[in-house]
This record gives sequence, C-alpha cells and structure tokens, in this order.
Amino acid sequence: MPTATTHDIEQCIESCTRCHRLCLETAARHFRGEGGAHQVPEAHIRLLLDCAEICQTSANFMVRGSELHGHICAACAAVCEPCADECDKLGEDPHMAACAEICRTCAQTCREMAAATHWRTRRAHPAGASPPE
Amino acid sequence: MPTATTHDIEQCIESCTRCHRLCLETAARHFRGEGGAHQVPEAHIRLLLDCAEICQTSANFMVRGSELHGHICAACAAVCEPCADECDKLGEDPHMAACAEICRTCAQTCREMAAATHWRTRRAHPAGASPPE
Amino acid sequence: MPTATTHDIEQCIESCTRCHRLCLETAARHFRGEGGAHQVPEAHIRLLLDCAEICQTSANFMVRGSELHGHICAACAAVCEPCADECDKLGEDPHMAACAEICRTCAQTCREMAAATHWRTRRAHPAGASPPE
Amino acid sequence: MPTATTHDIEQCIESCTRCHRLCLETAARHFRGEGGAHQVPEAHIRLLLDCAEICQTSANFMVRGSELHGHICAACAAVCEPCADECDKLGEDPHMAACAEICRTCAQTCREMAAATHWRTRRAHPAGASPPE
Repeated sequence: MPTATTHDIEQCIESCTRCHRLCLETAARHFRGEGGAHQVPEAHIRLLLDCAEICQTSANFMVRGSELHGHICAACAAVCEPCADECDKLGEDPHMAACAEICRTCAQTCREMAAATHWRTRRAHPAGASPPE
Repeated sequence: MPTATTHDIEQCIESCTRCHRLCLETAARHFRGEGGAHQVPEAHIRLLLDCAEICQTSANFMVRGSELHGHICAACAAVCEPCADECDKLGEDPHMAACAEICRTCAQTCREMAAATHWRTRRAHPAGASPPE
Repeated sequence: MPTATTHDIEQCIESCTRCHRLCLETAARHFRGEGGAHQVPEAHIRLLLDCAEICQTSANFMVRGSELHGHICAACAAVCEPCADECDKLGEDPHMAACAEICRTCAQTCREMAAATHWRTRRAHPAGASPPE
Repeated sequence: MPTATTHDIEQCIESCTRCHRLCLETAARHFRGEGGAHQVPEAHIRLLLDCAEICQTSANFMVRGSELHGHICAACAAVCEPCADECDKLGEDPHMAACAEICRTCAQTCREMAAATHWRTRRAHPAGASPPE
C-alpha cells in the first residue's frame, strides 16, 4: 500500500531534474559532433529530447505541488524506459551508459510515484475503484 | 479500431496549442487582478498552469513526430478534464466558460489520440497483447 | 516614438507561436530522415531547437502579461535572426524557405516589441535615461 | 577581458537551475495558501513564474551548448534582478529571503556570462565592433 512522502517526492524531483539534464547533454554532444556521437541515429536524438522535456514537465508539476503529478510521472516513466533501452543498445560509450542509468532510475522513481498517487486517488474516490486490502 | 491520421494529429496539436494559450491567459487575468478573477481559488490557478504546461509538452511531442506521444496525450487528457470541471464550477464568466470548453475539447482529442496510439503500439508488438477483433 | 498596443502584442504572440512550431517541425524532419534533411548540419538542428524554445518562452511571457517581456523579445530576435540566415543558406527546399521567412518575421516583430517596451521603461524611470525627442 | 570557461558555464547552469526551482517553489506556496503567502501580491506570483521560466530556458541553452546563450543569459539577468528586489520587499519570511538570494546570484552569474559571450562574439566579428585592448 504505497503512499508518497515528501522525501519520495523530493527524490523523484531530483531524478527527473538529473535525467532532463543528462538527456539534453547527450543530445548536445550530437549537435557538437563530439566523440563518436555521429553514429547516434537521429531517432535517438528525438527520444532524448522527448525524455528531457517530459522529465522537465514532471519535475515542474511536483515542484508546483500539483495534485495531478501522478499522471505526468506515469507518462514520464513510459518515455524514460525506452530511452534507457536505446542508450544501452548504443554501446560502450561511458556518457551514454550514464544516460541509460539515470533514465532507468528516473523511470523507476516515476513509476513508484504514479502508483502511490493512484492509490491516494482511489482512496479519495472509493466509489470509483476498491483499493487493495 | 481507431488509428491516428495526419489530420487527427494536426487537430490534436491545434487543440493542445489553443488550450495551452487559453489556460495561461486565464491564469494571467488572476495575476492582473482583472474582472472578478480575484475570487478564483489559488488551487485553480495552479491547475490552469498545470494544464497549460502539459498541453505545451503534448503539442511539442506531436510536432516533433515522437512515437511516444500517446503517453503524453493520455496524461494531458487526465489534466484537461478536471481543469474543465473546475472552470465550469467557477460560473458564468464568459472567459472561464471558453476555457472550460477548450479544455473539454482538448481532453477529448487527446483521449482519442492516446487510444489510437495504444492500438498501433499493440499491433507493433502483438506478443504483448492481442488487439481487438 | 513606438508604444506597443494590444494588437501589436497579439501579433507578436502569433509570430512567436508560428515560429516555434515551424522551427520544431523543421528539426523534426531531420529526426525522421526526411527529404534531403540528412544534409542539414547538426549545429543547425540545435539552432532550430534554440529558436523554438525562446519563441515559446517569449510567447508565454506575453500571454502571461509580463511587464518584462521586452527583454525576452530582444533575446528572441537575436536568436531568430541567425536562424533565418542559416535556413537561407541551406538552399532551395521549400520547407526551409518557409522556416526562414517566419524566423525573419518573428525577429522583426520581436525587435519592435523590445523597442516599444524599452521606451515605456525609460518613460517610467526618466532618471535612468532621457527618452528620444 | 572576460571569457567564459567550462567551469563558469557549469556554475551558471547550476545557478539558473536552482533559481528556477526556488522561484517555482515560492509561487507554489501561494497556490497552497501556506505560511502567510496569501499576502503575496498576484503580480509577484507572475514575476516568480517569469523568472522560473527564463532560468529554465537559459539553463537549457547552456546545456545544449548553444552559441547564442549569451543573449538568453542577458534576458535572464534582467528578470532575476527585479524578482530579487520584489522578494526583498516582501520582508522577513526566510523562504522569500532565500529566493531573493538565489535570484541575486543568478542575475550576477548570468550578467557575467552575457558579458563574456559578448566579448567572444565581437572577436569573431571584428568588423562589427572593436574589442577592448
């Protein structure tokens, strides 16, 4: 029966902020033509930009104290996960590996945040769905 | 068996862009202290900012041609819907009514977009789930 | 002696919104590997993303009714201008030409907006600088 | 004769990121109706949102490695400065004081960044303006 604490939210903001930064930085290496980044497929650059943007939006919802942040966190996890997979496929570059790792972490904290919020929403509206025992 | 056409995506971008604009404008009236806007509860200002931001992100995903825009559209619909409800509750002000209407339209087009994308994802990965007959 | 009217501001929001959209779309063609877009240098993709982002921020300041939008419009013009130049250099592609044109228009409306705001600011603080006769 | 090092840019990204966060958080307290925040004038909430957004855009330009970040940093400083002043006027609240402090720091680092970039731009285009000896 998960519920999000202030500490959980802070951690999730932190992982979204770091993931946003690292994804944008990884895309930036492509723009600079640095370190073998030329081989990065264009579709992966787009995925990195997608991931950076939804992480930023997700962090902003939580910082703003929005009650609806769970929906954004769920979407964020759904973007971070394939972004991590694609980074992994691109191989041994240490920067790409670091990007994969933070994407994975961010997907995990966002999934937990979404689950905790979902539970709270269901408690608030018990007619809509019965919470787990 | 819905599938999103270029025309559907264009319409969804359009409704997200308009919803973003109108929500931000409605919040701005509060900042200016205009037209009875003083009675708008602070939590509704936040909801308008939430709605504006996720609409912007949602439009950006579609303009970028992201394959993952369905997840963002689903989250967008989940924010637009309660924003429309709250605007409706705030009564007879014509600006607020216009804001409610575009939020409702945006929620609808985003829900359809999310459903169409979900179907395509399932076709692409038939092992994951069987599509409807 | 320029001063910005509501109509000017509306026009400037409109050109920023369209410029944001077209720059992001032009970058998206690169991500899709469409129509000769492969030859677009990576640094130009970054410039398109820069232009899209500052146009979005500029439009948001004006929609929010911010008193400080002149500073953002000045920065926006300073990004739109070189973006238009680079689009022009990339030749005869009609999409790129359309992008160049809206960047040029947006640079112009933003410059005028910045000038009008600057003048107003100087009137408000006459000690700081003497307004033109 | 200032020139921006990688370390300077990193510091400026850091201060923009922190300023974005704190300004959005300070506005969020208003939305929650917390701690005397009710007395915060609506125009100051808008200024906090302005400051948060341009700080975010400014950080993104630098993370993306944009050559034009100097223009955005200049605009950012021009928004952070009055935001710090307004926070100061709102008195003894420790959260507001912390917000004023980070806005002041961010304005300073952004001003320096803009100055350093301006110099570099002038070296690159000596015909446009003669650099200082």
